[in-house]
Amino acid sequence: MKIAQVAPLFESVPPKGYGGTERVVSYLTEALVAQGHQVTLFASGDSLTAAELVPVVDRAIRLDPRRPEWLVWHTVMLDEVFSRAATFDAIHFHVDFLHYPLARVCPAPCVTTLHGRLDLQDLPPLHRHFSEHPLVSISDSQRKPMPSANWCATVHHGLPRDLYRFHAQPDDYFAFIGRVSPEKRLDRAIEIAVRCNTRLRIAAKVDTADQLYFEHHIRPLLAHPLVEFVGEIGECEKNDFIGRARALLFPIDWPEPFGLVMIEAFACGTPVVAYRCGSVPEVMRDGITGVIVEHQDEAVAAARSIGRIDRRRCREEFERRFTSATMAARYVEVYQTLIGTRSNLPWQPMPAEMAQ
Amino acid sequence: MKIAQVAPLFESVPPKGYGGTERVVSYLTEALVAQGHQVTLFASGDSLTAAELVPVVDRAIRLDPRRPEWLVWHTVMLDEVFSRAATFDAIHFHVDFLHYPLARVCPAPCVTTLHGRLDLQDLPPLHRHFSEHPLVSISDSQRKPMPSANWCATVHHGLPRDLYRFHAQPDDYFAFIGRVSPEKRLDRAIEIAVRCNTRLRIAAKVDTADQLYFEHHIRPLLAHPLVEFVGEIGECEKNDFIGRARALLFPIDWPEPFGLVMIEAFACGTPVVAYRCGSVPEVMRDGITGVIVEHQDEAVAAARSIGRIDRRRCREEFERRFTSATMAARYVEVYQTLIGTRSNLPWQPMPAEMAQ
Repeated sequence: MKIAQVAPLFESVPPKGYGGTERVVSYLTEALVAQGHQVTLFASGDSLTAAELVPVVDRAIRLDPRRPEWLVWHTVMLDEVFSRAATFDAIHFHVDFLHYPLARVCPAPCVTTLHGRLDLQDLPPLHRHFSEHPLVSISDSQRKPMPSANWCATVHHGLPRDLYRFHAQPDDYFAFIGRVSPEKRLDRAIEIAVRCNTRLRIAAKVDTADQLYFEHHIRPLLAHPLVEFVGEIGECEKNDFIGRARALLFPIDWPEPFGLVMIEAFACGTPVVAYRCGSVPEVMRDGITGVIVEHQDEAVAAARSIGRIDRRRCREEFERRFTSATMAARYVEVYQTLIGTRSNLPWQPMPAEMAQ
Repeated sequence: MKIAQVAPLFESVPPKGYGGTERVVSYLTEALVAQGHQVTLFASGDSLTAAELVPVVDRAIRLDPRRPEWLVWHTVMLDEVFSRAATFDAIHFHVDFLHYPLARVCPAPCVTTLHGRLDLQDLPPLHRHFSEHPLVSISDSQRKPMPSANWCATVHHGLPRDLYRFHAQPDDYFAFIGRVSPEKRLDRAIEIAVRCNTRLRIAAKVDTADQLYFEHHIRPLLAHPLVEFVGEIGECEKNDFIGRARALLFPIDWPEPFGLVMIEAFACGTPVVAYRCGSVPEVMRDGITGVIVEHQDEAVAAARSIGRIDRRRCREEFERRFTSATMAARYVEVYQTLIGTRSNLPWQPMPAEMAQ
C-alpha cells in the first residue's frame, strides 16, 4: 500500500527531545515500512526514517533559532502533500485541521488522527462543518466532547517492541515521569511515596508556563529525604529509570487522551498506579498491569501492595496490545476501509472541465 | 461580473473600531456593487454590506468574548469560499496565504491583496513556492522585500468619495492620528508642533504592546501646553478632527505599505507633512498635497509654510486618484486580466477520474 504520513513540523520525526505526536508518527511510519508498505513521510528535514522523506523545512521549527512562522510552513507542506496526492492509496494526517478543505477535493482518501484534547469550544462546530472527514481517536475517552463526529476507529498508540527491555527485578523506588504541571499532580505522587515510606524518583521537565506552579507548589515538597528530582531525561535513560521502578505513579487529574508513559511502563514490566481519568481505564487492565484508583488512600494501598502484580504479565499486555506493529496493523485496516467506502462519499471533487 | 471578496474575520466589514484591512474590503465591496457587479462577501456575520453576505462567524473574532480560535474559522471560511468557487468569475482574497494550496485547484481565478508588511523572513520562500499565485500590492514600495513575486498590479487604497467633507478653512492646529507606537514617531510630531509654536491635537490609541513605550517616551511630552491628547476617536469625529487641521503630521519611521490617513487628509483638503518612508512618495505629490521631508528641520520648515499648499488641490488629488470607485475600477481590470490569462496557467487541477 502507498501511504503518506503527514507529521507536524514542530519537532523532527522522531523528536530530539519532548514531542508526543511526532514520536508516535515515527513509530507508526517505521512499523508500516517494516510491514512492507511504501510510505512517504512529510516532516522536517532533520527527521530520520526508513520511509521516503519529503523534507518541508530544513529543521524542526521549535528548535530553529530563526523562529520560522509555523503556519507558513504547514501551508507549504499541505501543498506538497496534495500535489502528490494521486500517487497515494491513503493520506494520514497528524496536523489538526488545516487540511480539511483540501481533503474534500483530494483524489486519495484522507484520514486524520486527532492527537490532542478535544474539549475546546470551536472543535465541535468545526467537525460538524467537515462532517464527512474521517477521524481516528487515540482513545475512546478522547471522543467524549465530540461523540457524534465522523469517528472511524480508535487506535491506541504503540511502541517498537524492543524500544524498552523487560526488567524482572525492580529496585526499591517508585517513578514519576512527565511535565511538572498542575494536571499531572506530582504533589499526589510525592504524598503516595512518602506515605509508603518508599523512595520517589522524579524525571520531569518544567515548562516556562509551569515555572510559578513549580516554585510555589512543588519545590517545597522536594526537600523530603525520600524524594529525588532527577530533571529531564533522554530516551536512553528512560529504559532503566522506568524499568527499575517498583511502580510508575500516574496520578493525573485531567482527561489525558492517551498516556504514553503507561505503555512505556508496561513494556519494561513495570506496573502502574493510575487515577481513573481520561484513557486510563482503556489502557490499564486493573489488577493485571497495575491498579486504577480514585483517591489517595486507594493509591497508597495500591502502591504498598504493588508487588502482587506480575511484571511478566505487564510485558505480555504490552506485546499483545501496544506495539507499533499492532498500531500499524490497525491503521492499515482503517486505510483499507476508507479506500473501500470512498465511492460512497457524498461530496465529489469538481471536474476540471467546470473551470471557467 | 460575479466577484467574491474574502475578508479577515477579526473585525466586521466595516470594522466597529480599528481594522485597516476590513475597512478597505468594505470600501471596495460597496464600490463594486455600486458599479453593478454581483459581489459575495465572506466575512463575520456582524458585517454590513450591499453585497450578498456569507457570514462565517456570528460576530467579529476580536470583539467576541468567547475568544474563538481564529484558525478554525478561517479554515471553515476557505471551505465556504471554495465550495461556491465555480459560481464566481473571480475570487479576491484579503487573508494572507492560507488559501494558496486551495487556489491551485480552484475552478475560478484567484487573486490576493497583501495588506501587511512583507519584510518577514518566511514570506519570500512562501511566495517562491506558490509562484503562480497572482498578487496585488497596495503600493510599489511594499514589494521591495519580494521584488520578483508574481505581482500583477499595485492598487492604491481608496475611500468613498463622500466619506470626508472638504474643509476650506482650517483652525490653527496640526493633527496627529494613529497608534502610539515607536515607528509612528509621535515624538517627532510633538517636536515639530512645538518648534512651530502651533497646537498639536493627537487622536491616538495605545495598544497593550505599546503601553511601556507610551509611559516612558510619550507621556512626559504630553505635558507641554501646546499638546492636546484626545485619545481614540471614531469615524464620525475624524472628519472634523482631520479637516480642521492646518496640516496632518505623518513623521513615520517604518516602511508603511500604505498610510490610509494620508488620503483621509487629502479628502478633507488637509495637506500632509510626511517623512519619506514606505508608500509616502507614491501617495503624496510633493508640493501639491503637502511636503515630503527627511529630517526635523525640513519638517518644521514645511509645517510653518504649509499655508502655501492649496487645500482644494488636495481634495482634487483625492477625487482623481484615491476614491473607492477608482480602486474598484483598477481591481476590475485585474480580475479581467486574470480571467483572460487563466488558460495559460502551468498547473491544472487533477481530474476526478485519477482518484484511486
